[in-house]
Amino acid sequence: MDDKKIIIIGGGLVGSLLGLILAKRGIKISVYESRPDMRKSNISAGKSINLALSHRGLAALEKVGLKDSILQHAVKMKSRIIHPVHGDKIILPYGTREGEYINSISRKKLNEILMDELELIQPNCIRFNTRLVETDNKSKSFTFDIGNGEKLIEKNCRIFGTDGAFSATREYLLSQSSTIKFNYSQTFQNYGYKELNLEPDELGQFQLENNGLHIWPRGHFMMIALPNPDASFTCTLFAPYKGKDGFEQLISKSNVENYFTEHFPDITPKFNDLADQFFENPIGNLVTVKCHPWHIHDETLLLGDAAHAIIPFYGQGMNCGFEDVFVLDKLMDEKSSWTDIFESFTEARKINSDAIADLAEDNFIEMRDKVGDEIFQKKRKLEVDLEIKHQNYYSKYALVTFRPDISYHEAMVRGRRQDEILMNLCAVKNEVDLDTTYKLMCEEGLIN
Amino acid sequence: MDDKKIIIIGGGLVGSLLGLILAKRGIKISVYESRPDMRKSNISAGKSINLALSHRGLAALEKVGLKDSILQHAVKMKSRIIHPVHGDKIILPYGTREGEYINSISRKKLNEILMDELELIQPNCIRFNTRLVETDNKSKSFTFDIGNGEKLIEKNCRIFGTDGAFSATREYLLSQSSTIKFNYSQTFQNYGYKELNLEPDELGQFQLENNGLHIWPRGHFMMIALPNPDASFTCTLFAPYKGKDGFEQLISKSNVENYFTEHFPDITPKFNDLADQFFENPIGNLVTVKCHPWHIHDETLLLGDAAHAIIPFYGQGMNCGFEDVFVLDKLMDEKSSWTDIFESFTEARKINSDAIADLAEDNFIEMRDKVGDEIFQKKRKLEVDLEIKHQNYYSKYALVTFRPDISYHEAMVRGRRQDEILMNLCAVKNEVDLDTTYKLMCEEGLIN
Repeated sequence: MDDKKIIIIGGGLVGSLLGLILAKRGIKISVYESRPDMRKSNISAGKSINLALSHRGLAALEKVGLKDSILQHAVKMKSRIIHPVHGDKIILPYGTREGEYINSISRKKLNEILMDELELIQPNCIRFNTRLVETDNKSKSFTFDIGNGEKLIEKNCRIFGTDGAFSATREYLLSQSSTIKFNYSQTFQNYGYKELNLEPDELGQFQLENNGLHIWPRGHFMMIALPNPDASFTCTLFAPYKGKDGFEQLISKSNVENYFTEHFPDITPKFNDLADQFFENPIGNLVTVKCHPWHIHDETLLLGDAAHAIIPFYGQGMNCGFEDVFVLDKLMDEKSSWTDIFESFTEARKINSDAIADLAEDNFIEMRDKVGDEIFQKKRKLEVDLEIKHQNYYSKYALVTFRPDISYHEAMVRGRRQDEILMNLCAVKNEVDLDTTYKLMCEEGLIN
Repeated sequence: MDDKKIIIIGGGLVGSLLGLILAKRGIKISVYESRPDMRKSNISAGKSINLALSHRGLAALEKVGLKDSILQHAVKMKSRIIHPVHGDKIILPYGTREGEYINSISRKKLNEILMDELELIQPNCIRFNTRLVETDNKSKSFTFDIGNGEKLIEKNCRIFGTDGAFSATREYLLSQSSTIKFNYSQTFQNYGYKELNLEPDELGQFQLENNGLHIWPRGHFMMIALPNPDASFTCTLFAPYKGKDGFEQLISKSNVENYFTEHFPDITPKFNDLADQFFENPIGNLVTVKCHPWHIHDETLLLGDAAHAIIPFYGQGMNCGFEDVFVLDKLMDEKSSWTDIFESFTEARKINSDAIADLAEDNFIEMRDKVGDEIFQKKRKLEVDLEIKHQNYYSKYALVTFRPDISYHEAMVRGRRQDEILMNLCAVKNEVDLDTTYKLMCEEGLIN
């Protein structure tokens, strides 16, 4: 459409996939990534070691022909596996139809595959150790620190900002707040998280069932665990910073050991080095970022976490970012100017990223609190039965996770109404009739 | 408490008053102001030419002994004077008790008086043309541009940020978002504003009644006018940027003249140069900023618009900023460390600045839409009657504006409940009995 140089700032998951989509269209790109090449150095790929890849993300990966090869590196998670403090585990399936499971995948592995594929098409298009440090909106220039005190200045380029929740590209939009009427919010949870590695057992086997996402719901805090292909689990404790059962009370090894023994008695003996890991690993923050607009004219566009960072409790952060790329690709087929593409993209995606942000906040409460509740479990079983008997009934979780043809916003509106109906039924009735419930859902326009 | 250098960034209304409060305590300060000295050069004092000074602001000015001398420069506004498109004006008094009026004052005059008073105590403590351009949270350094390419670097100082809605000091807190869990939002209205000057008539007299705040409510837009001591009025048009009756349609002189003649027929002929002014003056933005925390340890504190910019529709932006200074001064008497003072200040003021931000948004709708409504006018007359008969009844407006002893938050909660009761009564009854209503208010705990 024009020959402005195209720069993608940030070579993480969304930036690499975006690069690949553009490269496959024959568009020359440069990706500037602040970190070293993770394929060559043993660096962390960023927050959260593994991720839950589901249908929205897979739809985007299918578009670039990588779905199957990437799934080879994933571990299928078919259910939530709930661990009460005492008593038996409870298994709540995520879905009931063919292919309705989520996939635990390593962030690093996934990123590496995307980078490899991109550089197969455009060798060396990713420039590492290249960090955006300054922008100037008058001269439209972007200054990158390239190490050894040297700078690289780019002017009048088309910039795609995929540099994550604390995006430096977004600062460029913030610096023009009055001109572009840039609405912006960043909201931190009063909760932090700590990742802990649960090694395979002596025989190299998984120490927990490997076909589910484990949850230890404890009301105002919780732990989860996702399986890795090497038979380890990445466990993540989510707890308040302050107050009862919060991080600030966990200051000695014996504090930590007592805390885990009290709240997570089944898993605690399986760790070799619990307290050591606890004090070695950092406490991560949980932040939600919302902003609007995501673009300036046809010059700059934010995608992924840079535009809409969400908390991880629906397992949709990466999936939403990949869906951004999917939608952008579609708009490039439909629209003839970058201005139209960027405007349509913001309008199409904003309502949906707001929806998944809100759903993720709801789900935090659901995971840490409600999944341990009897009425909730009854409701979840009812949903499973409904889905089995009526294949075109989709729970809220299934709409969000397994139906990329339905937008996040529609999934939220419809799913919330369904939840309300089902929770009310489960609260007042011992036995809920499936056909009557299904009919009610049809009458409310919740089935299609 | 310690001998760190104290710097106030921003010598506007709040910064100058804060300087004065500290100087009166014998604390040595430096005020760094980005603009030239408004007392010596003919510069604009910033957005909005005049302001409505009311009891909360006056309480702070009284503390520094300036209340009476400042009020000499103000014009009393005792009522809202409503101008329908056709028909008679409607006068709605703001209050019914002694001293219950608001004061139109020039931003520039007020700022000049505060600066003069401050420099009487600490000569030349305000350094002009000194703009904060860079902060570094590792070295705790603040770099100021002092003109001619020269820089001034300050390290390890105690910083008070009073540099307004687009505060550069706030960037320092934003740069430490993850560490201090800095929640931040900036929200732009879809409305802008344009100021227009209405000159005195040929005899040098006011062209409208000078004892009120004039409003031309037009539903989705409005104009207001505040009197100035020189017998002019500052009129402000608030209109949407886009869509029906929005700024984007006002692109030619004839557009502007037709628009004003249609919507504001009584005042339009009184302007000499309406369309010229319209195109000379900029369109201002309306932004609400909320953030938390406002401080870092005992090192940096935001006050006034830097901490909580609000839209102007309750006439409380400056009053709230002055109340900040009033409260800080009180805390300096009560607390023995800067850490305690800063923490207590944030906790005490955050809930109240959130309340006035929300009230200001409500009042925008009230001013542009509801004041033209018959039930609203009936309710407002009922409130006036109630206040006259029962001197200890205070309307929401009176609680916010004339009762600094009641916090914004309490005024909001109580005032909203009162409004609900009164609007319901006015909607269903032709005649509302004052004593019965008063009794109801007492039963609801709304009188004290």
